[in-house]
Amino acid sequence: MSDSPQLYRSSTTAPVNIAVIKYWGKRDTVLNLPTNSSLSVTLSQKSLRTHTTASASESYSGDDTLLLNGEQEDIKSSKRTQACLKHLRSLRAELEAKDATLPKLSKMTLRLVSENNFPTAAGLASSAAGFAALVRAIADLYELPQSPEELSLIARQGSGSACRSLMGGFVAWRAGTKEDGSDSKAQEVAPASHWPDLRALILVVSAEKKGVPSTAGMQTTVETSTLAPARFTDIVPRRLKEIEKAIHEKDFEAFGRITMQDSNSFHAICLDSWPPIHYMNDVSRAAMNAVETANRKAGKTVAAYTFDAGPNAVIYYLEEHAYLVAGVIRSIIPYIPGWEGEFAEKIRPNEFGGLEQRTLMTLKTGVSRVICTGIGGAPEKIDKHLVDESGQPVSVD
Amino acid sequence: MSDSPQLYRSSTTAPVNIAVIKYWGKRDTVLNLPTNSSLSVTLSQKSLRTHTTASASESYSGDDTLLLNGEQEDIKSSKRTQACLKHLRSLRAELEAKDATLPKLSKMTLRLVSENNFPTAAGLASSAAGFAALVRAIADLYELPQSPEELSLIARQGSGSACRSLMGGFVAWRAGTKEDGSDSKAQEVAPASHWPDLRALILVVSAEKKGVPSTAGMQTTVETSTLAPARFTDIVPRRLKEIEKAIHEKDFEAFGRITMQDSNSFHAICLDSWPPIHYMNDVSRAAMNAVETANRKAGKTVAAYTFDAGPNAVIYYLEEHAYLVAGVIRSIIPYIPGWEGEFAEKIRPNEFGGLEQRTLMTLKTGVSRVICTGIGGAPEKIDKHLVDESGQPVSVD
Repeated sequence: MSDSPQLYRSSTTAPVNIAVIKYWGKRDTVLNLPTNSSLSVTLSQKSLRTHTTASASESYSGDDTLLLNGEQEDIKSSKRTQACLKHLRSLRAELEAKDATLPKLSKMTLRLVSENNFPTAAGLASSAAGFAALVRAIADLYELPQSPEELSLIARQGSGSACRSLMGGFVAWRAGTKEDGSDSKAQEVAPASHWPDLRALILVVSAEKKGVPSTAGMQTTVETSTLAPARFTDIVPRRLKEIEKAIHEKDFEAFGRITMQDSNSFHAICLDSWPPIHYMNDVSRAAMNAVETANRKAGKTVAAYTFDAGPNAVIYYLEEHAYLVAGVIRSIIPYIPGWEGEFAEKIRPNEFGGLEQRTLMTLKTGVSRVICTGIGGAPEKIDKHLVDESGQPVSVD
Repeated sequence: MSDSPQLYRSSTTAPVNIAVIKYWGKRDTVLNLPTNSSLSVTLSQKSLRTHTTASASESYSGDDTLLLNGEQEDIKSSKRTQACLKHLRSLRAELEAKDATLPKLSKMTLRLVSENNFPTAAGLASSAAGFAALVRAIADLYELPQSPEELSLIARQGSGSACRSLMGGFVAWRAGTKEDGSDSKAQEVAPASHWPDLRALILVVSAEKKGVPSTAGMQTTVETSTLAPARFTDIVPRRLKEIEKAIHEKDFEAFGRITMQDSNSFHAICLDSWPPIHYMNDVSRAAMNAVETANRKAGKTVAAYTFDAGPNAVIYYLEEHAYLVAGVIRSIIPYIPGWEGEFAEKIRPNEFGGLEQRTLMTLKTGVSRVICTGIGGAPEKIDKHLVDESGQPVSVD
């Protein structure tokens, strides 16, 4: 009797990122090439992360599989996932061709197991962290020498914004101009350590109804919005330069203003699409109003809202202004889940926010939970595996 | 004892107009010159009107006065009103200079009395009808030979959109290019009789709070929106041609689509302004959703929404589709005020609108009254005077 075939495993966690210059519009829907560059903040994996284990073994047979939050995903018919796997395998095959002593992992079936530590119901875009974790875990399993920037080209094909989750801190996704997408990749603008006191408070809004899926929405905008071309070709490139300067100079006032303006610009071209697309609702607007009030009271920009393809508000602020921003929100909705963990500890409730009654009531009734987090780093290789030594999925989180 | 000096009176009613290509942005704030042309539908004076009497007499002394809905308005410090009065007086003075037999009305104090037949609380822009009625009544009093087009140059200085209320049917306000504004005036595109079965259902939304006043909002947009320039220079001129063609051809599908797109484009540049401007709320969006549902059920565009600087929805439709559009709304909110009068009679409640529950509930709780109306004609000279023979205000409505 021989030993059972060896099992190869590698595990990683990957972060969520929230754009401050928004990605909305594809110039190539197969390759996920965007109409404009974008820039995001990588959030701390202490709060939000996808944990993925990639495993391969001669003993595995059949199709590659992905178990996500305990459910088998149909990755065979997902062109996006297949594109990532194919690309990663070909890079591994190149290594194996050069060094015959390497195990032939590129020929083995992959078993992928992935878990998000945040509720799907929270309406947080999990695809970015998910594809970043998948690409990072397989690249580690395959011991690929490619840099995060090079791997971002692969993750991008899984989900556009996933390319930005392969790095920490402030990450730009350069749109590129080439037809094959070979210059459309992520680049670190500054690491998390550059501005470590940047915080994010996420207000999870109980949406009555799922909005238009982002891929479909983006295409509607590209095809129909008459205001969008100016955004793609002129407004975003200018804003991107400005916000990079603000980040380098740690100028929160400029950073915050541009963040808010770009969120509004994105939702404006959604409204200008045909049929029009709405992601924000009255609760979102109450959150905007709370931020505007905090800034007015402070006499400067101490908080900045941004909204993705849904009603949730993400509010950026600096640790030193926690009381003026997150503290006000905490005093309004102290009993909902989420005021816990390292980032929440320093948020003292502030009853002197001066919000108007309507804003208070709308937030009280419309926000279902908060997530207190901050800027964070790149995906991390960890030794907690979601596949045991016999190749079976296990839960460790 | 001599007779008391003669009293001169002239009375008019003037209509409200609701733009389908929106006016939003001034290139000259003193002369009320717009950044783009606009186009509106004049609504029937059976439903909404301002009634104004202009009177002059040697027996009047002191400043000109305006009694609006029973309250003395401070017109002395209103530059806009003074500009209108000065312009009208100078035209009268020209007539008097040519014909010495004419009474010297241009030298007499004016007493103006004005009443709106709609509640101010309805949040309907009354300034358009108000300035149109004021200019029309004084022009009639002065027996000015100027055409409505020429008078529109004067009304425009009172309130931009007032220039469009001097004519009936479909009225364009040509932005013009001259610095002195002499080519920025209204022009009838088609009379009401061209498309007499065009109807408008206004959903009056109980706004929690007054939005940004439009003059201030417009300036914010002009100064800060990065998306607005494309709208001003490119998008609106193209749309205006398209909607004029749709009007001439009585093509409701094109008319409705362009109307909705232009409303969305206007609110998009509001959102893109800094600070951002919101006029629509969740009730407005429920109205949009109801219109979208009616169109989907009909398999074509039978209804078109448009929103001005507030949350009220105006829904245009053709009489033949009353059941499919206004009927659905009537079945949801049958007990609120406004389902009365000639235009409402033909609206049979339709319980088969297929609206989703959330839209139903939002409309039920958020709409406080409706106004059932339709396309209508130009200001009308009437002999009901709001000033009696002794020069005292009387109410006749």
